[in-house]
Parts: sequence; C-alpha cells; structure tokens
Amino acid sequence: MAMAGFALDDRQRLDWLRLIRSESIGPRTFRTLVNRFGGAAGALDALPELGRQAGRTLRLCTIAEAEREFEALRRRGAHLIALGEAAYPVPLQAIDSAPPLIAIEGEPAVLSRPCVALVGSRNASAAGLKFTATLARELGEAGFVVVSGLARGIDTSAHQASLESGTIAVLAGGLDQVYPPQNISLLDRIRPRGAALSEMPLGWVPRGRDFPRRNRLVSGLALGTVVVEAARKSGSLITARFANEQGRQVFAVPGSPLDPRAEGGNHLIREGAILCAETAHVVDVLAPMLRQGDLFGPVPFLAREGGEPPARQEALWDELDLPEVLPAPKLELESEFPRRQDVVADVPHRLLLDLIGSAPIAMDDLVRASGRPAREVSRILLELELEGVVQRHAGGALSRSG
Amino acid sequence: MAMAGFALDDRQRLDWLRLIRSESIGPRTFRTLVNRFGGAAGALDALPELGRQAGRTLRLCTIAEAEREFEALRRRGAHLIALGEAAYPVPLQAIDSAPPLIAIEGEPAVLSRPCVALVGSRNASAAGLKFTATLARELGEAGFVVVSGLARGIDTSAHQASLESGTIAVLAGGLDQVYPPQNISLLDRIRPRGAALSEMPLGWVPRGRDFPRRNRLVSGLALGTVVVEAARKSGSLITARFANEQGRQVFAVPGSPLDPRAEGGNHLIREGAILCAETAHVVDVLAPMLRQGDLFGPVPFLAREGGEPPARQEALWDELDLPEVLPAPKLELESEFPRRQDVVADVPHRLLLDLIGSAPIAMDDLVRASGRPAREVSRILLELELEGVVQRHAGGALSRSG
Repeated sequence: MAMAGFALDDRQRLDWLRLIRSESIGPRTFRTLVNRFGGAAGALDALPELGRQAGRTLRLCTIAEAEREFEALRRRGAHLIALGEAAYPVPLQAIDSAPPLIAIEGEPAVLSRPCVALVGSRNASAAGLKFTATLARELGEAGFVVVSGLARGIDTSAHQASLESGTIAVLAGGLDQVYPPQNISLLDRIRPRGAALSEMPLGWVPRGRDFPRRNRLVSGLALGTVVVEAARKSGSLITARFANEQGRQVFAVPGSPLDPRAEGGNHLIREGAILCAETAHVVDVLAPMLRQGDLFGPVPFLAREGGEPPARQEALWDELDLPEVLPAPKLELESEFPRRQDVVADVPHRLLLDLIGSAPIAMDDLVRASGRPAREVSRILLELELEGVVQRHAGGALSRSG
Repeated sequence: MAMAGFALDDRQRLDWLRLIRSESIGPRTFRTLVNRFGGAAGALDALPELGRQAGRTLRLCTIAEAEREFEALRRRGAHLIALGEAAYPVPLQAIDSAPPLIAIEGEPAVLSRPCVALVGSRNASAAGLKFTATLARELGEAGFVVVSGLARGIDTSAHQASLESGTIAVLAGGLDQVYPPQNISLLDRIRPRGAALSEMPLGWVPRGRDFPRRNRLVSGLALGTVVVEAARKSGSLITARFANEQGRQVFAVPGSPLDPRAEGGNHLIREGAILCAETAHVVDVLAPMLRQGDLFGPVPFLAREGGEPPARQEALWDELDLPEVLPAPKLELESEFPRRQDVVADVPHRLLLDLIGSAPIAMDDLVRASGRPAREVSRILLELELEGVVQRHAGGALSRSG
C-alpha cells in the first residue's frame, strides 16, 4: 500500500507516540497492532485486555507522558516524523523494522538526500582515520550525505569530514543523551547542515543493546555501508549484516592480515562485500543507482491510520511473517559499553518459536527448555501472540496458531 | 596426444637442445617446427632453407655447443628434462608456452609434488615478510612445495621459510647465473630438499625481459599463485596474470589503501582474486583440487619425436593458433633491472599480424606502419611464416596465408 501524502493529525501522532512508547511494543509489534486494530488508537484500547489474556499487565504510555515528550521536543526544536510521512527517509521506510516515529534535530532537508553509511572501530589507527576523512569528504563532494553513529574513532572522523556537505548522526539513546559525551560539541556542529536522529525517547540513556539496535537505522538510511576498520567481532559488522539483510550495498576497506583492525573488513570482502580502496569504488556503484527509479522494495504494509482494518487479516499475517525485528546478533559484540553485560542478549523469538509446536506446551516448560529468564519468555510470548503466530489455551499453555 | 612414457634418447635430447638454443626459436616456434617436421632433427635440417626463404641467416646451435652444455650441466649435477617426460612437472606441461627443456638442480622429487607460488615485492615491509614466512611455512606443513623467483623481499622470505618442506626457485638466467648474487647462498640451502629450475642456457645472464618471461614458469608450476605485496605496476601482477591465463587460482593478500605496496593485491581482489588473510584461505581451495583427477586441460599437441608428421597439418595450425607465447606485458614493469631499458618490449606478433592482409605488403612498409625496429619485424615475420600464418611472395612481400 502506497503511503504518499500520508500525514498524521495531532491526535493520531499522540496515539502513535503513546503506542510505541508503551511497554513491550517495538516497531514490529507496533505495525502488527496498527494493522490488526486499524490504527494506534484502537491498539491502545485493546492492549490492556491482550495483556490480561497473556497474564501480564502492560504499562501503557499515558497521554500526559506523550504530551510531555512532544513539549520537550518542541522546546529543543526537534521534530517527530511518522513512518509514511513525506519527510520520513525513503530508504529507512523500506526496512522491516522501520521505527514508527523518528525524532530529528537539525536540517530536515538532509533526510531526503542519498546517504552512505561509514562505520568502523572506535580504536581506529591513524591511517584508518585519515582514510575515513578522505572518503567522507569525497563522498560529500559527490553529493552523498554521510551517516554514522557518533562514536569515537571512525564515526567521529566520518562526521567531522562531512560537516559542510551534510552528515547524519544516529543516536542509540534519546536526542538529549549523547554518547560519548565528548561528542556533544561535534553534534552541535553537525546540526546546522546535517541532523541528529533517534527513535528513542528524550531522556533515554543508551544501554549496550541499544547500539546494535541503532545500527539497523545507520544502514537502513543509506544506499550502502562502508566498513572502514573493524575487528572480527565488532558492532560495525552488525551494521554490515543489517545492510546486507536490508538489500543494501556493503563495502569494506581491506587491511593487512596482521592488523586485527582489518580482520572484519577482510572477512566481509571474502564474504562478498565490495573492496573499497578509494572513494570511486563506492561512488561508481551507488551513483548509477540514483538514476534508477524505485530503488527499494515494497514498503511493509501499514494500515492507513483511522481506516478500516483490512478484510483478510490472514494475508496480513503472511505479509508480516518477517525475520526478527531486531535479530539477536550472531556476532559477539565488541561492546560499546564495556562495563555492561547486557550487550549481546536480544529477543530470541526464533528459539521460542521452534520450541512451540501444535500441541500446547506450558509456560514453565518453555522457560526450562529455552534456558531463558521467565520474564523474558513471558514478554516474547506476548509478542508472538500479538503477532498471531502463537495462541494461548486454557491454563496458559501455548501452541502454534492455525 | 598423451605423452605418458615418452622419453628422449641421447641423440634426440641433443637435437632438442640444439633446436631450442638456435636463434629465434622460442617454446612456441619449437613446437611448431617439431610438429611440422616430425621431430627436432627434421626441423634442424629444414631451418637453413626456411631462413633463406625469409631472407635471413639463422644461427643454429651446433652439436659441439649442445654437447658442451650437456657436459657443463653434468659436472654441476644438473639434469635436462624434456616436455612430455615423466619427470617434467605436469602443471607446467599444460601451459601454452611450456619450455621444451628445463634444467634443474636439486631434488627432482620436488617437481612431482603440488606447488603454490608465492610472489611479491622486493621492497617488502616487515609485516609482509613476516606474513610470507608464516604462509610459506604453513603451506609446507600442508604438503605444498613453495615456488618463487629468488628475488629479494617476498621471494626470499618464501624460500627461506620452506627450505625444510621443499621449495623451487625459478631463475631468469642460467642455473649458474643467480640473480641477485646475494641469494647464491640461499640457493645452496634450497637444493638439498628443493630445486633450482631454468629454461635458459648455462652462462645466460638474465636481462630485464627474462624476468616476466620467467614468471610464466613460476605460475605455471603451481596450482595457485599468492601475491603478497605488490605495487600497482609490478612483476608480481604479471605472474598473477599468467596464473589467471593458465587457469590457475590467483590469491592476493590485502592491505591498507594507504600503503602503496597493497595496491596490487587490493586491485587483484577487486578483479576477482581470492582474498588471502591466512594460510587456510589457500589450502581450503587447493587441497580439494588434489583429490580430483585431470586438473589440467589437454596438453598442447607435440608430435612424437621421430614419428611421422601428422597428415592434416591445417588442423595443427588451428591447434597452434594460441595467444602469444610470451605476451607483451600490458603492465608497465617495476623493473627488476632498473638500469636496463629493455624491460617492457616483447614480441608484438599480434600487431604485425593485424597489419598483414591478403594483399602482399612490403617489409619496409610493415616496419614503417608498425613503428618497430626492422630487425625485430624481420624476426617476427620469420616466426609467423614458420607458423604458417604468413606467406612470402616474390620480392619479399608478405600476406596472410590461405
């Protein structure tokens, strides 16, 4: 369903914000609920009962909380853009787990220009930083906006070299929770011609797992992702994997096999990434794409807000039978927050789904079989139930639907 | 035509040596002549008249000269192996321009084992030398013989690390003309378990153009060639190109785009070479090939020495309509002999052939049109005539045959 001209009114935007800010609701569940209930308002009405059926009390974001966030954003000069609205970046709209709302600060025009993501190690070499700066500057000269994650090292170099031409920093926390703090001043220099972008609420302090989650937006905004220096197990490789899953070009800069910072890039090249040794190696691939129409596949279905729920819901579920919204990274992370332990864990939907067959199984048995904490299993089961792939029986046992 | 069990008697070996040591006779012309005249003896008999028809006096290698070379080789403990004999390396036999005779010193058994060529810069980095040593040692442990060119830098490191497991040094000059001289002692350590190999006569001081010519033997002996550090325009890239044309695997070690020594390798990877960052990347490709039969294509036709000339010579010419024996390198060379100017020039058969049509053209016009020295044009025309693709008319004008 095309969404040209789609725009939320104030009330709808408030409902969207409340729904996405409510407990256990991620981008994928958001879309499931909006499609099932014909809009965010209907989903908010239905959630308490859905939670009760799942044996849980879901905390909804209140109207007052949502209004406070709007007001705080307004005071900062930030905007919320809804999935499907004209200002929402087209490449990002095409990814499976596109955030329903993105908060941006800066120059909105930058969101409509073609982007290249540059990512790499925080502990970059002098040569890596120099190469990144040259690449970012020349990509800017070629008309591309440089997207990165505002981290130390490669990210910082990429943003700095593209301040004039335009650069987008995607934050893992809220727009007011810049990490690392020493890059607050860099972000101040990014905004005049570029933008800061976040899907998280103001005040959200980024946790370890928010960084790989954020990386899908870095790759999703761009036609291609260039990995400049990356250890074998690093967040940059997760960004590259997201780019690949999103059907975007993946480029990697090679390095000596004796340099651990080159392991990730060399590995990606062996896996099929395009070797990038100069800017032309990126531009020569991406520039011709700009002359094609319809670069991105069909946008995942989203019901028109306030419209009727579609007649054949089954077809919708099929359409929504997508991979995990936020797949558990298969790579161990080079943690961006070395002091935290929660970097790797992400929702193991697939694991639980594999354990659930057509014969009902008790929640306790699932907890034992999965080896995951009861609270996590409960949360995932709710999501699976909301997606319609799992159904709950008398006594709370679960089986596959249909 | 299979050549199993083929072996020359002493007289035939002398004739072969005389023919290949005669003026203007390279491996390709050698094969053409042997096929046309049913053996080297017949070719030697016919050459004076062929030369006269071409307006040239061809200097033939005399029996005495050939016997002196045999005796000198014998005193050194060296052997001459003929194309098609059991001891001749099978992979080398399969290349278009396989030398009719190779002189070897050392352990002949090494010639029958699977080989990998390691080549790279003479001005290698410490990291490049270290990586080469590890690669050569591990390839040796995996059962491969390491082939290289005895040059400074990467070649030296490759040989040194594979002295125990076996290594072959292919020389651009005669077996007694080691270049560079400081590697004479290295060659002494190579021979006990490895070999020195040359197609050139004893006493032949290598000229610049002999090095790219030699490189086809380095790649031709091996299942695959690994380029470790190579500038964009270097002899190593010529070896890689030969390997590719010979249908062998090409591997390249990546490096930083800011390191000029990595340009060649990165370029090769972009062109389709396999990125090699560890030994397994080579072994995993080559080891399975060893379990296949018939790795190499059909061996280029060579008439049985002393047998009847084949009835349909036209078919032979077709079979022999191969690319240049020693194609003029398209890359400018990083000269191995910086003081000489004759590095790039190689026989531009193709250029002359393009200038010759069905209407006879005078030799002088060909010299003018080709821009090549008269002496070179004369030599090439003789070769083309011997191959049967060009014919000479009254007054010396030339046209395409048939």
